[in-house]
Amino acid sequence: MRIVFHGEDTAPFADGFAALLAGPAEIALLPAALSAEADRRTYAAAQVVVANRFGADVPAPRGLRLLHAPAAGTDGLRLDAVPPGAAVCNCFGHEGAIAEYVMAALLARCVPLADADARLRRGDWAYQSGDPARAHRELSEMTLGLCGFGHVGKAIAAGARAFGMRVVVANRTPPAASPLFDRAFGLDDPAFWSAADAIVVSLPLGDGTRGLVGAAALGAMRADAIILNVGRGPVIDEAALYEALRERRIGGAVIDTWYRYPSASEPGPLPSALPFHELTNVVMTPHMSGWTKGTIDRRRRLIARNVQRLAAGEDLENVILPKRG
Amino acid sequence: MRIVFHGEDTAPFADGFAALLAGPAEIALLPAALSAEADRRTYAAAQVVVANRFGADVPAPRGLRLLHAPAAGTDGLRLDAVPPGAAVCNCFGHEGAIAEYVMAALLARCVPLADADARLRRGDWAYQSGDPARAHRELSEMTLGLCGFGHVGKAIAAGARAFGMRVVVANRTPPAASPLFDRAFGLDDPAFWSAADAIVVSLPLGDGTRGLVGAAALGAMRADAIILNVGRGPVIDEAALYEALRERRIGGAVIDTWYRYPSASEPGPLPSALPFHELTNVVMTPHMSGWTKGTIDRRRRLIARNVQRLAAGEDLENVILPKRG
Repeated sequence: MRIVFHGEDTAPFADGFAALLAGPAEIALLPAALSAEADRRTYAAAQVVVANRFGADVPAPRGLRLLHAPAAGTDGLRLDAVPPGAAVCNCFGHEGAIAEYVMAALLARCVPLADADARLRRGDWAYQSGDPARAHRELSEMTLGLCGFGHVGKAIAAGARAFGMRVVVANRTPPAASPLFDRAFGLDDPAFWSAADAIVVSLPLGDGTRGLVGAAALGAMRADAIILNVGRGPVIDEAALYEALRERRIGGAVIDTWYRYPSASEPGPLPSALPFHELTNVVMTPHMSGWTKGTIDRRRRLIARNVQRLAAGEDLENVILPKRG
Repeated sequence: MRIVFHGEDTAPFADGFAALLAGPAEIALLPAALSAEADRRTYAAAQVVVANRFGADVPAPRGLRLLHAPAAGTDGLRLDAVPPGAAVCNCFGHEGAIAEYVMAALLARCVPLADADARLRRGDWAYQSGDPARAHRELSEMTLGLCGFGHVGKAIAAGARAFGMRVVVANRTPPAASPLFDRAFGLDDPAFWSAADAIVVSLPLGDGTRGLVGAAALGAMRADAIILNVGRGPVIDEAALYEALRERRIGGAVIDTWYRYPSASEPGPLPSALPFHELTNVVMTPHMSGWTKGTIDRRRRLIARNVQRLAAGEDLENVILPKRG
């Protein structure tokens, strides 16, 4: 099997890949640019391409049998350029990491470890047991709202349930009743937004979700509730979020997905044109929630499994476009 | 029923207690000192005493039927002073809160929220997905060791399992096989100490446990492993812990239970005679892990339930000494 990892961002998955295959394979890691003739020839001969971008600049390999995104998002793949003999698959495997990130952020709000530590180092026993005024909060007293109930939402629900949280969900397709949640709402039901102490947005970005969380949704939230975004930045309206935080109309935010990202011309931008970085009621992280060694390992193993299945003529996992010829 | 809450530290449980009882009751909250004659008379007439201290200074009420500690620890109750007609009960209800504290501390080590936030505010996208060198850790890659496997250990194990952690336990009585752990060790088996990435001590303090975690146990730990104490401070040898941290022979510590506590004469002491507060590889908290509104509520409800059961002639919960006459 001739396998090409195309683009520098696929390198983490190429590393150690050969060892996961039972049979022999020719594995090449090619730069995104393909400026060398040899690289273009290798690309053109690929039977498997692992890439986040496909079909825009380079002709598709004629003998392609599998195009595999090493991520969940496939908006960089031009599916109309995929030869009919090739299937297209994507990867999950980040949902456990994102659930850990979300629970870390929620627990950090309940258990004031950093403040308690700073105080005790100077002999201040704030938070000590005995006086009810010093008691901290428990997750088990709280309701979690999940805006989006796919792989990620379900993994977060499982974590929340382990701590006895009440869970409500909002999803386009009403989910089947499950022990993972107590109540389901439609995505456009305003009652969802007032039903939770913390709301996690894990929706993908699409025509129906851009700006879906706007002034109305934020305005319906409880005054002390927080919102977390681990989906895509623009699902939450940028200006509406900034205003809700600046005017302290909600309890706070934990934002991992943003409105501006580093680029070659601007490697270290602030993540929004609005001064979120001047606010004290937001935790700002750089699109890191799913990025763990565990995620990389799980994705690398899934891609290898699919290559093995392809070689054996078996059904592939995570197919988003089957082969058509 | 004549119910006395004795001592200022029982006030959180007296607050709102009457509303939890079905029948009428005379409820009094008395100071620890009992310097007023009227207070001594009320105490002497009690049928139920809720207290953390009993039998040392004041004669036991003759008609006592139930002595209820509002905590798990009963080392302040002189059981030989309890009249034969009275049962003694204690409270748990803090295990869920302690599990949240432990998971908060473990997740805080994996997910660097504070550092990521500080960096992104100045345009530094450290930890961003894409580069494997920026990946953070997942709990699911780690093994948790539980030194002590009672109420608290089991609640922590349930939380750890929700994140896919491997769990090993060390307990005096070998626990029955359970989905909560993968392997059990004896308390004195040195192999336990090298088997985990994080070890939580939740043992009570007693003759067999004082200093049980000493230089040998700490020396057997993995070089990057951390130790957490939510049991009682002196279960871990003070000097051995300090030296292991100062010499960075272990990865760090999260210490909630200490060697020195506030007293009337010294309300804000440092929690050890040794300068733990000068170390950067320890998180120091003031015996707060179980102290939540949830814990207070659960204990108040348990005490009320036991008063109801006593009135109805039913078996009590959490009996540590049954009535003997």
